[in-house]
Amino acid sequence: MPSRRTLLQMSLGAMLMPAAAGPAAAWRSQARAGTPHDQDRPARQSILRLDSNENSLGMSPEARKVFARSLDVANRYPDGHAQALCDALAADLTVSPDQILLTNGSTASIRAIVQSFRQNRPSTAEGRVVAQDPTFGIVERLCRDLGLAYHGVPTGKDFAPDMVAMEKAARKDGGPVLVYMVTPNNPTGVVAPTPALFDWIRRADEETIFLIDEAYHDYVDAPSYESAVRLIRDGHRNVIVTRTFSKLHGMAGLRVGYAVAHKDTMADLSRFSDGWNINSTGLMVAKASLADTSWRAHCLRQNTEARTILTDTLDTLGLGHIPGHTNFVLHRIAADHADYKRRMADHGVLVGRYMRTGPGWNRLSLGTPDEMRRFVDILTDFRRRGWA
Amino acid sequence: MPSRRTLLQMSLGAMLMPAAAGPAAAWRSQARAGTPHDQDRPARQSILRLDSNENSLGMSPEARKVFARSLDVANRYPDGHAQALCDALAADLTVSPDQILLTNGSTASIRAIVQSFRQNRPSTAEGRVVAQDPTFGIVERLCRDLGLAYHGVPTGKDFAPDMVAMEKAARKDGGPVLVYMVTPNNPTGVVAPTPALFDWIRRADEETIFLIDEAYHDYVDAPSYESAVRLIRDGHRNVIVTRTFSKLHGMAGLRVGYAVAHKDTMADLSRFSDGWNINSTGLMVAKASLADTSWRAHCLRQNTEARTILTDTLDTLGLGHIPGHTNFVLHRIAADHADYKRRMADHGVLVGRYMRTGPGWNRLSLGTPDEMRRFVDILTDFRRRGWA
Repeated sequence: MPSRRTLLQMSLGAMLMPAAAGPAAAWRSQARAGTPHDQDRPARQSILRLDSNENSLGMSPEARKVFARSLDVANRYPDGHAQALCDALAADLTVSPDQILLTNGSTASIRAIVQSFRQNRPSTAEGRVVAQDPTFGIVERLCRDLGLAYHGVPTGKDFAPDMVAMEKAARKDGGPVLVYMVTPNNPTGVVAPTPALFDWIRRADEETIFLIDEAYHDYVDAPSYESAVRLIRDGHRNVIVTRTFSKLHGMAGLRVGYAVAHKDTMADLSRFSDGWNINSTGLMVAKASLADTSWRAHCLRQNTEARTILTDTLDTLGLGHIPGHTNFVLHRIAADHADYKRRMADHGVLVGRYMRTGPGWNRLSLGTPDEMRRFVDILTDFRRRGWA
Repeated sequence: MPSRRTLLQMSLGAMLMPAAAGPAAAWRSQARAGTPHDQDRPARQSILRLDSNENSLGMSPEARKVFARSLDVANRYPDGHAQALCDALAADLTVSPDQILLTNGSTASIRAIVQSFRQNRPSTAEGRVVAQDPTFGIVERLCRDLGLAYHGVPTGKDFAPDMVAMEKAARKDGGPVLVYMVTPNNPTGVVAPTPALFDWIRRADEETIFLIDEAYHDYVDAPSYESAVRLIRDGHRNVIVTRTFSKLHGMAGLRVGYAVAHKDTMADLSRFSDGWNINSTGLMVAKASLADTSWRAHCLRQNTEARTILTDTLDTLGLGHIPGHTNFVLHRIAADHADYKRRMADHGVLVGRYMRTGPGWNRLSLGTPDEMRRFVDILTDFRRRGWA
């Protein structure tokens, strides 16, 4: 099965497993066997998982309590909890509940959006997708699966999205276009300039649909940044924002994400989603997590501290890095990525797969400050040996 | 959002809530607010939930232990656990792991199958779907959403599927056909005759795809019944079987289902699924539940006891019922269904929505034997008052 793992990273587990044929096998080959949460292997607590942009601090204490309580409803369908979370998100975002689509992670929202875009096009002119390059790979994969043309527009200096070139690419042939904008972007951490993005959306025709992927929204501290939810509140029908509880909320395993759009847009999108299909535990935990703002503030402080530990060391070692607004840092390595990744795995560190950022770069997830102290010691040693 | 709830039942919650516009609202309106698992309302432990074919006994004790342990990995992506469950299922079904697609409940498998069927058809001849009528409504809904023709073939005597008429309907115009066969069927509980079904599949052309929905497979005790997984093992590419952990395994809230098919069929199907998107808790719990055969045997014994309590009372009251192979019973009521449903709700019992079985029928989920004793007392009282 085509998978986020396949797209985003190769892991220690994948390295240890034989290659297998077929999509289902591909899905399995992405599994991180041998990592601490594989119950069938001996625990290897010492592995540093810095490859998947998860929150090493885990879920909020309040969320953990609700998790335990959710056991008692695990035999019942989750419906009521979906409504409760939908209402809580609507209040949080100042939109109406029928402007929110809950999905199994934001990836399921993204799939529904691309499928909707694909099906609403006449088969003779199936529409094109425009995105910055590099970016999160799921949309490119969906285009391949669903028969849509995908056009990646190279980012400019320091990986900033080239807004002029993207708009030009989107307008090139006329007709339906889906613009996929990840902001902050993955794997670069760079935020798209809000004024340029908003201006483009405002002057775009209705055949240009904007999918704004705000998976890392919670981490942004750029004063000029604003969520595109604002444009949805202003009545724009051609903007869909996706968000996830997998990052700052520390809930990657529970698969809760959502899309926000104008209610007319949402009515169409709903046809392509199994909206009631989120697990009750995830729904209940997400609602509790949303209410626990102090835990998120704590996580953000820890993330900033972890970033400083990392970037200070990178500076000391003379390894460049991109100023980002996420829970990962794109940084230079003075080594072949495959060698670096393998050697890091040998040292118990998962640093993720090669990203399409050209040679000499690595995307490293920020763990806890303690994890980052451990990592920078290893990195410093690598640099000494000429491995990084 | 179009929902299983909307299709399958109207609930106490839906009755208490105002009608709302739009699909997202429709999804929310199906929520069973006010039932015991709505954390925002006072617990109403006394409500008898006999509307959704859940397992009132809950999850296996072994599964409950694993549920608690899964908290510690909730911040990590679920991949490794997906592989572990896939391998366990493959061993259980004597197929290869690349013949299994894990999805968020079997409904997500069904969606992927219908979407794949839809997209693989030329737009000028989009294919038709044939099913028995009445049956589980999700495929009819998907056809409406995705622009496919849906043809329901009335069931025969005692709601048995009319295999001859179904095959005739499938062959009528030539070209691609998706046959949707729920066996045992919902809402009737009736099993399709295995020899007739298997013979049809064996002589069908490759443009006739069979989606065999075996959600209630675990409950069947008819000696002549056999799962269509057998045909997949025999190499048939045009058969896809769907299953779920929502019923006997007592995991409806955790959203774990799967499809089984020939690996070539699966390779195509995978393109339409977010396969890695199942929550880690559900994956871990499902694997533990699969291993706990003694709990399932216990649940089956309790289900049989509950059925006997119900059917004995129905016989005493002169209310006919259909011999079924599931955790629900389709039975007669001598009353208008809407009145009956409302009055049952007033007495704290959710009996489900009107099913397309004609007037005078109700589909009742089997709870625990104690729950059924409570229910038959209420039903007997209703009969005395002329309400049933």
